[in-house]
Amino acid sequence: MTYYFEDFKVGDAWEFGAWSLTREELIAFAREYDPQPIHTDDAAAGRTAFGGVIASGWQTTLKCIRLFVDGLMRETAGLASPGLDELRWLKPVRPGARITARATVTEVGESTSRPDRGRVHFLISGVDESGEPVMTAKGLFFVARRPRRG
Amino acid sequence: MTYYFEDFKVGDAWEFGAWSLTREELIAFAREYDPQPIHTDDAAAGRTAFGGVIASGWQTTLKCIRLFVDGLMRETAGLASPGLDELRWLKPVRPGARITARATVTEVGESTSRPDRGRVHFLISGVDESGEPVMTAKGLFFVARRPRRG
Repeated sequence: MTYYFEDFKVGDAWEFGAWSLTREELIAFAREYDPQPIHTDDAAAGRTAFGGVIASGWQTTLKCIRLFVDGLMRETAGLASPGLDELRWLKPVRPGARITARATVTEVGESTSRPDRGRVHFLISGVDESGEPVMTAKGLFFVARRPRRG
Repeated sequence: MTYYFEDFKVGDAWEFGAWSLTREELIAFAREYDPQPIHTDDAAAGRTAFGGVIASGWQTTLKCIRLFVDGLMRETAGLASPGLDELRWLKPVRPGARITARATVTEVGESTSRPDRGRVHFLISGVDESGEPVMTAKGLFFVARRPRRG
């Protein structure tokens, strides 16, 4: 099954399952990509209002993106994404927190220049166990139109 | 040396050095975080207009963010970032491409609610060897004011 542009409608929604991080995974990611003490140094982080290390917002984002790719984009005739808008890290994510990845279609549209594709806009989010978003982002993807049979 | 809010002025600019990716590093990252064929499958990617695997935009972003953190944020009294805006992947990044990370201060402002900090807005970019941006993003960081002595 491959999803094409015509298959996406405003309001379509998915829940992709959940992820969580151990303290070690959280620190290892931050050491490689975002080495700030709030993410890498338990003692220094313990002296802040957060009371201990919190996940890099980039790791939170990528864990949700991975589930979005696995759960939807790998079966979609996606052509490219020019980027994301309004990436927001709304709540600290601590080791052991269970975060559910979701996506909703917020807008679909014709391509202004390419008749073979359309635009699909998603709101991608990670939601904690109290139901509050820890991360949201608005993603735009170009998706191929369904090939004509004939 | 620690940089505080008062140290940032509109127009301040940094060049943080360059990064590049081997084909293996590019594919390994994508397998973990963004497993789409254009990033993970040389044969499938070779049949697209790109002619071969290109880096996940997330990897391009994180490689630049790492240099931004190392070159600036680790010496800055940064308090938190609520997120990023207008993350754009402008050109494909192929194995071996040499990308230079840069940042410019585009806006500074008082915090509307917290007198201990200010807002610093950065344009963060990755630029290829022809001088063209492959990635840009607008980042907002809250930075502590310089502590008063006396």
